[in-house]
Amino acid sequence: MNPETFAPEHFRWDFDEGVATVTLNRPERKNPLTFDSYGELRDTFRALVYRPEVKAVILTGEGGNFCSGGDVHEIIGPLTEMDMPGLLVFTRMTGDLVKAIRDCPQPVITAADGVCVGAGAILAMASDLRVATPETKTAFLFNRVGLAGCDMGACAILPRIIGQGRASELLFLGRTMSAEEGEAWGFWNRVVPQGELMTTANDLAARIAAGPNFANAMTKNQLNAEWDMGLHQAIEAEAQAQAICMQTEDFRRAYRAFVKKEKPVFEGN
Amino acid sequence: MNPETFAPEHFRWDFDEGVATVTLNRPERKNPLTFDSYGELRDTFRALVYRPEVKAVILTGEGGNFCSGGDVHEIIGPLTEMDMPGLLVFTRMTGDLVKAIRDCPQPVITAADGVCVGAGAILAMASDLRVATPETKTAFLFNRVGLAGCDMGACAILPRIIGQGRASELLFLGRTMSAEEGEAWGFWNRVVPQGELMTTANDLAARIAAGPNFANAMTKNQLNAEWDMGLHQAIEAEAQAQAICMQTEDFRRAYRAFVKKEKPVFEGN
Amino acid sequence: MNPETFAPEHFRWDFDEGVATVTLNRPERKNPLTFDSYGELRDTFRALVYRPEVKAVILTGEGGNFCSGGDVHEIIGPLTEMDMPGLLVFTRMTGDLVKAIRDCPQPVITAADGVCVGAGAILAMASDLRVATPETKTAFLFNRVGLAGCDMGACAILPRIIGQGRASELLFLGRTMSAEEGEAWGFWNRVVPQGELMTTANDLAARIAAGPNFANAMTKNQLNAEWDMGLHQAIEAEAQAQAICMQTEDFRRAYRAFVKKEKPVFEGN
Repeated sequence: MNPETFAPEHFRWDFDEGVATVTLNRPERKNPLTFDSYGELRDTFRALVYRPEVKAVILTGEGGNFCSGGDVHEIIGPLTEMDMPGLLVFTRMTGDLVKAIRDCPQPVITAADGVCVGAGAILAMASDLRVATPETKTAFLFNRVGLAGCDMGACAILPRIIGQGRASELLFLGRTMSAEEGEAWGFWNRVVPQGELMTTANDLAARIAAGPNFANAMTKNQLNAEWDMGLHQAIEAEAQAQAICMQTEDFRRAYRAFVKKEKPVFEGN
Repeated sequence: MNPETFAPEHFRWDFDEGVATVTLNRPERKNPLTFDSYGELRDTFRALVYRPEVKAVILTGEGGNFCSGGDVHEIIGPLTEMDMPGLLVFTRMTGDLVKAIRDCPQPVITAADGVCVGAGAILAMASDLRVATPETKTAFLFNRVGLAGCDMGACAILPRIIGQGRASELLFLGRTMSAEEGEAWGFWNRVVPQGELMTTANDLAARIAAGPNFANAMTKNQLNAEWDMGLHQAIEAEAQAQAICMQTEDFRRAYRAFVKKEKPVFEGN
Repeated sequence: MNPETFAPEHFRWDFDEGVATVTLNRPERKNPLTFDSYGELRDTFRALVYRPEVKAVILTGEGGNFCSGGDVHEIIGPLTEMDMPGLLVFTRMTGDLVKAIRDCPQPVITAADGVCVGAGAILAMASDLRVATPETKTAFLFNRVGLAGCDMGACAILPRIIGQGRASELLFLGRTMSAEEGEAWGFWNRVVPQGELMTTANDLAARIAAGPNFANAMTKNQLNAEWDMGLHQAIEAEAQAQAICMQTEDFRRAYRAFVKKEKPVFEGN
């Protein structure tokens, strides 16, 4: 996958100054996911592991909505008729998309307006940073379609973002979390007017892309890896990870810039 | 234990439309726990594992208070004279009550007014959802009676609900958390006037009871089981758990209702 | 190390009524850390394990700032020229300071005004309780000097205090967290006017020092040890830990005081 020329079939891809933007673009249906788009998204995030020229990723939707989740007709219907091996192929594929978002070295920023439900809420949750508008309505609505709240990692990840009590409520009721609640609870990093959604996401992405990208990737790796480590093991893991970063040129660039009272220009190595 | 006829000795039991209500009912002492009530509560929550007709549980107290914790005369006094084997029998029994609340498949909703301290605060903490009134005063007051804050899982569970820093303060000081703090910190899901406490708890319980109960039980199982899993393991565990739920009739009921633009009626299978 | 006579070279030490105060005291440089002060702080917190007469520790800075982190000239410069074994000696030493703060039995209270950045922010994060002023500016600014956010345990500890989403933002941007944000997010337990910073910290320390110190140490031990335990294991661990505390005299003192309607006087045994 070459980020300059990549032309996916099931979503839009833009790439500019180190920032890739993935836009879900079936606005007439509020950007649902299908078997095909799940697979292509998974493969794209997996490919980013080998693409250091991509320094940050924005995930957004077209037409005033983020994502309505798995398409009722194209996904839910067929699932009701599948056998267990087939179902597991599907739930593992959706889980693999979350794993790929967490495992790619680039920080991923969700910019969500309007509908952000089901697998759409999961995509936001799996991202590193999250921006919304006052109109964003988020629902982990799985139990409203007869399923469990434990979808694509929600029972593990959501409690770490908003706390165990609030996550339990959202997962047991399937109710909508307002943008105001989501900001107060730490789900959204910013809630901004609709006209500022993409400028805010682009600004965050640009700031991250201008940073020391090798080191940022190490930060993301450690946020994942230390998820279930003991305290001492995590501290030792960081001693090793940071020692590696201290051998980068970016670290020396920052020091030289500081001595000259200049702003450092990082190159990601 | 038959939920229709169950008549416990040490608390009140009501059962209506799938919702069981456990009411601590020694209001003249602010509903303390005793050796006997600990044991009977533990056995009751354990029995609920085999009672799918119970779909949600409310835990509350009589007479304007939730629970004053372990009774000073009936519990604290005798404990000061026990040997280690005896003490461990007691602390394991109290821990077993928390394990039973977490392990029963039904979401448990605490509805607390007034005093909510010691083991009472723990019962609230161990629940899935929590409702209070502005008058609810919560204290993990163990260090004020010469004990450690690590009682019945508090050092593990409380930080996941309100964050490590706020939990540390409550456990090291034993101070009261106001209802306002508890709501802002994510301990209470709702704080409502006293007259609305039980209607709010009943409404939450009814909404949960009307949901897909097999799937809700899976959500609760995964919230517990993923507590200390790595990210990848948790995502794989959810792929398996959700695939199981996709073979339930409730999933098909939801799909058929959606196609007919009706509201699904779940049956828990 | 005798707390009554201890005279460290690289910071100030005061000891009064069971409370030790560590004051970083190079105010002309905003109290940076050096190789020497890192080592002496680590050794001091390690020595506290054997000093039950020290019941609480306050960590603060002189001259209106808490700590500016690793000194650019005395630490950053030399690090840019070290080989990997040398770098690892350094990052392990800094990690060992965090381990020593977490492992000492005394609750540690950071009292921070003004600059609280880099390793300074880490010292605050590693403490049990945190007090600030409206002027306190906290930044985990590692990526601004070309390094990763995974420094001294930040990727493990910060998310548990303020949530995974807010921690990710601070670590990927290196931006300043205002005192107001830090209080709303649960990083600071109190934000008070500058004139009240030390009285507030001293009051918290005095309340903790007047508590059952053996039990408080057990609380701290369990907060650390249960970091990555499963729910059942944590509850069993607390059953054992609390049973140990039930054999202390402090537990009996509290019971006897209660019966006499007096305030208990704890002795830490």
